[in-house]
Amino acid sequence: MSAFETIRSYGVCIDTLAETFLTRESSDLYGMLRYFMGFTDERMQPAAHVAGKRFRPAILLFIADAFGCLEDAKPAALSIELFHNFSLIHDDIEDNDELRRGRPTVWKVWGVNKAINAGDAQLVLAFEALMLMPAQSSSYRQLEQFLMARYREVIEGQHLDFMLTDADIEDTTVSEQTYLAMLGKKSASLIGATTATAGYIAERPTAEVEALDRFGYAFGMAYQLHDDRQSLWAQAAETGKAVCGDIVERKKTLPIVYTRDSLSEAKRAQFINLYKDSTSSVEAILELIEETDARTYINEKIATYKATAFSALEETSLPREQKDILIAFGNTLVP
Amino acid sequence: MSAFETIRSYGVCIDTLAETFLTRESSDLYGMLRYFMGFTDERMQPAAHVAGKRFRPAILLFIADAFGCLEDAKPAALSIELFHNFSLIHDDIEDNDELRRGRPTVWKVWGVNKAINAGDAQLVLAFEALMLMPAQSSSYRQLEQFLMARYREVIEGQHLDFMLTDADIEDTTVSEQTYLAMLGKKSASLIGATTATAGYIAERPTAEVEALDRFGYAFGMAYQLHDDRQSLWAQAAETGKAVCGDIVERKKTLPIVYTRDSLSEAKRAQFINLYKDSTSSVEAILELIEETDARTYINEKIATYKATAFSALEETSLPREQKDILIAFGNTLVP
Repeated sequence: MSAFETIRSYGVCIDTLAETFLTRESSDLYGMLRYFMGFTDERMQPAAHVAGKRFRPAILLFIADAFGCLEDAKPAALSIELFHNFSLIHDDIEDNDELRRGRPTVWKVWGVNKAINAGDAQLVLAFEALMLMPAQSSSYRQLEQFLMARYREVIEGQHLDFMLTDADIEDTTVSEQTYLAMLGKKSASLIGATTATAGYIAERPTAEVEALDRFGYAFGMAYQLHDDRQSLWAQAAETGKAVCGDIVERKKTLPIVYTRDSLSEAKRAQFINLYKDSTSSVEAILELIEETDARTYINEKIATYKATAFSALEETSLPREQKDILIAFGNTLVP
Repeated sequence: MSAFETIRSYGVCIDTLAETFLTRESSDLYGMLRYFMGFTDERMQPAAHVAGKRFRPAILLFIADAFGCLEDAKPAALSIELFHNFSLIHDDIEDNDELRRGRPTVWKVWGVNKAINAGDAQLVLAFEALMLMPAQSSSYRQLEQFLMARYREVIEGQHLDFMLTDADIEDTTVSEQTYLAMLGKKSASLIGATTATAGYIAERPTAEVEALDRFGYAFGMAYQLHDDRQSLWAQAAETGKAVCGDIVERKKTLPIVYTRDSLSEAKRAQFINLYKDSTSSVEAILELIEETDARTYINEKIATYKATAFSALEETSLPREQKDILIAFGNTLVP
């Protein structure tokens, strides 16, 4: 089994747990949540396959298993996956996205009001999942505080994302620093929470929990920047998304902000005008990006984040074999 | 000091606590929440007065004080008030309401996306408030489970409300039973949670916590039905709301459902047609309502819920003086 398959296999038990947890009275409210996670189709009939990769619980449980606390880690893994899906249900409304994982989004099927409310139910369930932890667990309260703060950080990141979307491309608030802060809060902090949680549950020393946190966080940054890179330079067949979708949507990702800041004054004005004009061609914008070393810059940035992640991993007491599986898994996700 | 003033005075300390709790980095995200609770105006400058009555924390703290555990009860009182305000922020989006407590709603000022996200942050904060409870408190985990289940029940109630709104007036799913179940989940269950929480924190026996729960729940039902009654039969000066607003919005409140079920077959068809036609006059609808004994019916229903509430209150070990203040307070809110 490849490192990728080894880790993914840990995500499977979360599906059973999640499906049971989301089966409750008021069946149509929770039915929307079961639909979103892929357990049913739109008519709430059992679906052929699960939607979502379950990477977060898979990594968490893989590490927890290495520490010998697989069972105790399941409630927290469930909580993180439920939270992640809550945030996607609301993100889809906020971004007006009609499709997710190849299926209509919750708001698209049931309307915005029911989707907001279903997301709210899912968020409460993400807290309730934590309470499945053994009552006598000494780390419970501490982990609970840690995760709540992280969950809120994701929401702060979404707010930062709105501000970036609202700002003009030439605005000084649109900067590498703001963009990375947004990615950090919106995505990487939850990956850090995921890996750190395994440490909390295994009652590892604070320094090791922090190293696990830095591993997840830095890897999460690399993963998100890889996503930005793929949007500009990968073939559609590879990503399953529209080529240059980020340019079409005029997102202010790192390659864009870097280009703006690296061009000569005249070219910079030209770039800004092209980017603000929704009718200008993607090719013209891409041409100016290629005039800079944006591609090299983002490649190096990703390499640096990966190096930071793997170096933090080395600080942990995980056995060599598990470290190597995590590194191979990371290299598969972010080549 | 009247019973009304006595209880309301307990709500004041929650304002100080809430304002501090909502003052955090990412100031404009939390600024929206401070605005909604009335601590600032739209430009996030300090506001002259607080928005909202704080009835829930006031009742909780009044009872907790009688049990000698005022301080310990504050985190839970804060949590319930934050949750209540979270639900209003999202309700305002879902109901397309532009005004709340005489001020523009969050979505009206900052747009729907930021309002959904701000509500999400407030919901996480409602959980975090609970963690301000003393760590050694034995009732912590139990109370946490109880409140989470209640918070989710409010969300289930909102879903039921959507279903009632979507259904046609002649639909058999629109019934007294469904309507009362919706009110129970959406509103009364949180009032029951409020009064029961005081019992949890005072570590009262289960039977007494349940009596407190029934007191709050039944009083919450009376309060909501009184609201329905006022919409149809009170003067605008008394409620500050549009006369017959519920009829204008074609809500399916108890007097409406009761009228539909009490009229003769011919009149019933007429009533249904009037109610489905958005151009028909409120007077014509009200005339048919008055042909039934809907007014008497709802008066009796409210009286029954109040009697149930006050009888449950008698089952508690609260001192006579506090019981009488709660009864007087109840009679002021719901005459």
